[in-house]
Amino acid sequence: MPYVKPLPSFLTQRYHGWKATTYKENAAWYRKLATEGQHPRAMLITCCDSRVNVASMFGVDAGEFFIHRNVANLVPAFSPSGDHHGTSAAIEYAVTALKVSHLIVLGHSQCGGVKGCLDMCEGRAPELEEQTSFVGRWMDILRPGVERVKAKHPKELDEDEMAEALEKMSVNVALENLMTFPFINEAVDNDTLTLHGLWTDIGSGRLECLESKSR
Amino acid sequence: MPYVKPLPSFLTQRYHGWKATTYKENAAWYRKLATEGQHPRAMLITCCDSRVNVASMFGVDAGEFFIHRNVANLVPAFSPSGDHHGTSAAIEYAVTALKVSHLIVLGHSQCGGVKGCLDMCEGRAPELEEQTSFVGRWMDILRPGVERVKAKHPKELDEDEMAEALEKMSVNVALENLMTFPFINEAVDNDTLTLHGLWTDIGSGRLECLESKSR
Amino acid sequence: MPYVKPLPSFLTQRYHGWKATTYKENAAWYRKLATEGQHPRAMLITCCDSRVNVASMFGVDAGEFFIHRNVANLVPAFSPSGDHHGTSAAIEYAVTALKVSHLIVLGHSQCGGVKGCLDMCEGRAPELEEQTSFVGRWMDILRPGVERVKAKHPKELDEDEMAEALEKMSVNVALENLMTFPFINEAVDNDTLTLHGLWTDIGSGRLECLESKSR
Amino acid sequence: MPYVKPLPSFLTQRYHGWKATTYKENAAWYRKLATEGQHPRAMLITCCDSRVNVASMFGVDAGEFFIHRNVANLVPAFSPSGDHHGTSAAIEYAVTALKVSHLIVLGHSQCGGVKGCLDMCEGRAPELEEQTSFVGRWMDILRPGVERVKAKHPKELDEDEMAEALEKMSVNVALENLMTFPFINEAVDNDTLTLHGLWTDIGSGRLECLESKSR
Repeated sequence: MPYVKPLPSFLTQRYHGWKATTYKENAAWYRKLATEGQHPRAMLITCCDSRVNVASMFGVDAGEFFIHRNVANLVPAFSPSGDHHGTSAAIEYAVTALKVSHLIVLGHSQCGGVKGCLDMCEGRAPELEEQTSFVGRWMDILRPGVERVKAKHPKELDEDEMAEALEKMSVNVALENLMTFPFINEAVDNDTLTLHGLWTDIGSGRLECLESKSR
Repeated sequence: MPYVKPLPSFLTQRYHGWKATTYKENAAWYRKLATEGQHPRAMLITCCDSRVNVASMFGVDAGEFFIHRNVANLVPAFSPSGDHHGTSAAIEYAVTALKVSHLIVLGHSQCGGVKGCLDMCEGRAPELEEQTSFVGRWMDILRPGVERVKAKHPKELDEDEMAEALEKMSVNVALENLMTFPFINEAVDNDTLTLHGLWTDIGSGRLECLESKSR
Repeated sequence: MPYVKPLPSFLTQRYHGWKATTYKENAAWYRKLATEGQHPRAMLITCCDSRVNVASMFGVDAGEFFIHRNVANLVPAFSPSGDHHGTSAAIEYAVTALKVSHLIVLGHSQCGGVKGCLDMCEGRAPELEEQTSFVGRWMDILRPGVERVKAKHPKELDEDEMAEALEKMSVNVALENLMTFPFINEAVDNDTLTLHGLWTDIGSGRLECLESKSR
Repeated sequence: MPYVKPLPSFLTQRYHGWKATTYKENAAWYRKLATEGQHPRAMLITCCDSRVNVASMFGVDAGEFFIHRNVANLVPAFSPSGDHHGTSAAIEYAVTALKVSHLIVLGHSQCGGVKGCLDMCEGRAPELEEQTSFVGRWMDILRPGVERVKAKHPKELDEDEMAEALEKMSVNVALENLMTFPFINEAVDNDTLTLHGLWTDIGSGRLECLESKSR
């Protein structure tokens, strides 16, 4: 039984449209990118969520941003023989091989991954606690963040406030974990790399720049 | 010393442009996406490479595609207690929670990750063989692909041909590994999910649909 | 306050894609259509439902089909001074001015309008019975169909069976009402027009040709 | 005598082509649309004219657009107990039940309905003035537009210029009439709906975005 099929026609049509317009108008640029390689200015780490249209929000053009997208824009702590290699590999490649100047973590509202983490920590999602749950084990990275959010807000938050606070905490945890990578620490020290934390509200389009963090 | 800084102004400007145009013209749609959640039609797995502007190529709009991007668009085999959780978590979320109808893997020419894998296998990149190399350990997923490419092409390929063949093999390996996930196998059997493999040439903008695969 | 806004950019991009490909490849044909007018072969009456992609299903090309789409693909009976003029005007134009050879009514599964009619007749949708409900008053056209379906199926149908039977009845009622228009009756008598009734199942893509009807 | 006949074979063949290609490649998506219902992003109101191939122009795919097509893309003013229910019902369903984010009215060149209205107003088409003419009574909606076009262009327009101006006026009148529906007014006020006006030239494929309108 064949399990790989041709591209759905609605995408074929869009591709041909792109080829005849955007590509055609920029063919020289694309050719240059192919022969000279990429020199992206920044790495973006954001969520896979279909509503986070980062390419539109930042007018992303070919060659500009090295983009890693995973569930809930998480970054695990430095752990060279451990798990979660995909994200660490992307970061290593961007910082040590491409030497990007900016590393931007973008979180967002209504994040399903963050909500799953919260449900899991509150005992409302036993299926995510299973050893076999990939989403659960991935969201473990954010578990300590739940306690930190609670400690930070002595007055009890309602569910929506809690989710938003944890979404922002996931960006903070990612930034802190980035600093556990020796090559990032060094690049930040040498002023060849700056880190940035953002959170966007999908409904209103608002973009929040998260507070500066110090060592 | 502060290590997290405000958003660079070139991005602030672009964001404000987006907010005043695309967001404003589609505010109703963004609000609907926020309140009703995402219902993406497809998941796209592609490379972090800045030259792969998948959003432009497929006219990607907010809410349409759940996008995971990692180095060399790899998918590890199903291994519920093992490494590489980030990619598996994204796939699990897309297929079991969002129930996307299409899963599309898009590879590309001049892929730095694939080239690294080849160099590593040919003994030209000892640094990638270190246990501490995140990129090396991530590209291990593609190692068996190198032998398969050689077996498939008895006549020796030059370096560029070899790289292109391995880039396409990385898509094939991803598709095969996707089929090792029980929930994907089941969804494919039930005809609720179809898999697609693509490869694009950055310089010419050409898009190749990889051959159908059977079980 | 401005209440009319520019075209959303996701459509602008698609339009430019179409202009550079489909339009460009067929510019001679479009120019001919502009100067010589339309000579469509058939009129299609189908539902507004976004899932009924009649253009794709029948490979509709520019100039081929005069297409009227309304809620639940209804046709009111001939009533020259009465309501529902929009549908009657479309039919009159297609048959008397354009002299189409075929008039095709296409119904479909999971029709929200038909379901509303059923709910209304069963007393489950008092809001649709309000004089001010446009959907309710429009679906009144199908009211007699509910009794006819029940009479035809002495064994009680479950809700899904009932909905499907009424969806097909809506096509039948449309065909019968078409025959109340004198110019249609005459064209059918003269063999210059044939009528056709179809129903499609959205999930399976199945197309059913409804039984022949006689006078 | 049977007056309903089987589907003409040229359509049967096309249907089977669609079933074996587009449907088959997207079966999972169609099944999802059947079980989860439609969530279209926009409503399109356009003319029945066979030359207005809106599905091609905007790469319309299943599930994206709720499409109403009538003669000359007209919208009558809000009149809950009056005529023209079909169009109002479609609008009511799209805005109040489906909660589409965009409502787009698309007019076009060489519109037969608009030309009929002009001929009628100039006394060149007595048959359209008959009480029994469905097209005439339907085009009455655009009658006030004829005077408005003349008032706007003190210099006399030739027949073609007049027709084009009235085609664009028909879009404007539709947009104004849409604003007479309380539920549209409210949705526009709440920024949950935006209105858009377009006109396309069939021969050249040009698309014009009509000027913004304010209240």
